[in-house]
Amino acid sequence: MRTVWLNGEFLPEDQAKVSVFDRGLLFAQGVYEVSPVLDGKFRNWPHHAARLERSKALTRISDDTDWPTVLAQLIERNNLTEGRVYLQITGGAPADRDFLAPVEGVPATRFAFTQDAPLVDLPKAETGLKVMLHPEGRWAIRSAKTTQLLYAVLAKEAARDAGYDDAWLVDNGMVTEQTSANAHIIDARGVLVSHPVDHGVLPGVTRICVLEIARDMGIEVEERAFSTEELFAAREAFVSAAGSLVLPVSEVDGRPIGNGGPGVLTAEIRRRYIARLRSS
Amino acid sequence: MRTVWLNGEFLPEDQAKVSVFDRGLLFAQGVYEVSPVLDGKFRNWPHHAARLERSKALTRISDDTDWPTVLAQLIERNNLTEGRVYLQITGGAPADRDFLAPVEGVPATRFAFTQDAPLVDLPKAETGLKVMLHPEGRWAIRSAKTTQLLYAVLAKEAARDAGYDDAWLVDNGMVTEQTSANAHIIDARGVLVSHPVDHGVLPGVTRICVLEIARDMGIEVEERAFSTEELFAAREAFVSAAGSLVLPVSEVDGRPIGNGGPGVLTAEIRRRYIARLRSS
Repeated sequence: MRTVWLNGEFLPEDQAKVSVFDRGLLFAQGVYEVSPVLDGKFRNWPHHAARLERSKALTRISDDTDWPTVLAQLIERNNLTEGRVYLQITGGAPADRDFLAPVEGVPATRFAFTQDAPLVDLPKAETGLKVMLHPEGRWAIRSAKTTQLLYAVLAKEAARDAGYDDAWLVDNGMVTEQTSANAHIIDARGVLVSHPVDHGVLPGVTRICVLEIARDMGIEVEERAFSTEELFAAREAFVSAAGSLVLPVSEVDGRPIGNGGPGVLTAEIRRRYIARLRSS
Repeated sequence: MRTVWLNGEFLPEDQAKVSVFDRGLLFAQGVYEVSPVLDGKFRNWPHHAARLERSKALTRISDDTDWPTVLAQLIERNNLTEGRVYLQITGGAPADRDFLAPVEGVPATRFAFTQDAPLVDLPKAETGLKVMLHPEGRWAIRSAKTTQLLYAVLAKEAARDAGYDDAWLVDNGMVTEQTSANAHIIDARGVLVSHPVDHGVLPGVTRICVLEIARDMGIEVEERAFSTEELFAAREAFVSAAGSLVLPVSEVDGRPIGNGGPGVLTAEIRRRYIARLRSS
């Protein structure tokens, strides 16, 4: 049984509970971060910490938890070598349900847990994901990493029902993201095209590193939205996320991307990213 | 201290807790209903039950709780005469966090609580609400009554910060809703105009009753979106919601609607709606 951290205490996972009046449960007023764990250490923390501050500001959540200490202790107590560490902060549990938070404030609810999972040896890194296109329908503030995730859940489950690995969301003919990963292509010219950082997508930590690595490799990078037509004409397609690092996309709506296998540039970006994580 | 109902048990409110792995807390996979309680009885249940079924279907939540029995017992145990009764159902708490729910399913988390509050003698029914216009930014499936409510929370708090009672949301120049109530006008011609039932707004139970009452009063009703220009030219504006019934809106963005006081038709609709609730 895992040990979970909740509001300052380490608890067996089946004892980690929050009030039914928690604003995270009633209003989805919650923000979170997921950091990759490799060789027993959580990685990329400065980027995650910076995004967490922005998410909190956008959602009116206050918290000054010493997360690096909490996460390091949690990883140690759970003997985690490879996987993820998840943290969430909510608007807390006032005395009663009201859209308006009490003016005097209420302490945030804070919890964190580990997930033991392979990040490096993933079969999908060899075969590529088969994804489907799906209409974008999330809320307007996707730049904050919040628990308003029901649309992503429903899109992922629709993809599973249809026999796909995941879904890429399309807004007016332009790709925004995969349900829980940033989406990128190496287009017909060999340029890496990636949605810009605005309220339309999550500013991915892995995305930052991927774009740096691509530029180091001499790949030209354009930060702009790309259309589904560009996607189908692309040489390669791939996704980036903290929980799965970099994964190739081999098919979209049953049509092969490029040669229908994982792209060579994608594979090299993934290799370099893992090396960079290990040495960070 | 209130008694809260949670997964089949009546508990003191400070003991009603759910797992940190609950999909309601992690992914906002939760649906809810709020029914008005008058004279110790919850009202309009058939309408709420029908909407709850639709919300569950849209969000892939299964549950067969005998809610009328639960709500009646909860009201009795809490000696509630006037106020609201709230119920919520979430996707439950699987063993670990994953966007995809386990294929074999997981029992829903179910809870309900009462809120003691005046519904009939409300000062705002006499003075009217002062609201501000605010950009629409919620997700695409507003027809389901889900806990994806963070945008509404932020809009309501922005309104409070700016000295308003609430916010009306505007999408491409057209009003959708108040943050947690349906929005209506009596336009310059004397026609009641109300957003149609589609995925853009919540299909309000109070809204159904309000439109029936208006038609009974001989008021012409048009179910279509109205623009902010029509709003400012309207004779009356008002909102409907289970928690506050029918309330006039006297000012929008600091500009008076009609004569700047509660509208006479709004007052009559409210009066008839309360009488109808009491006799239902």
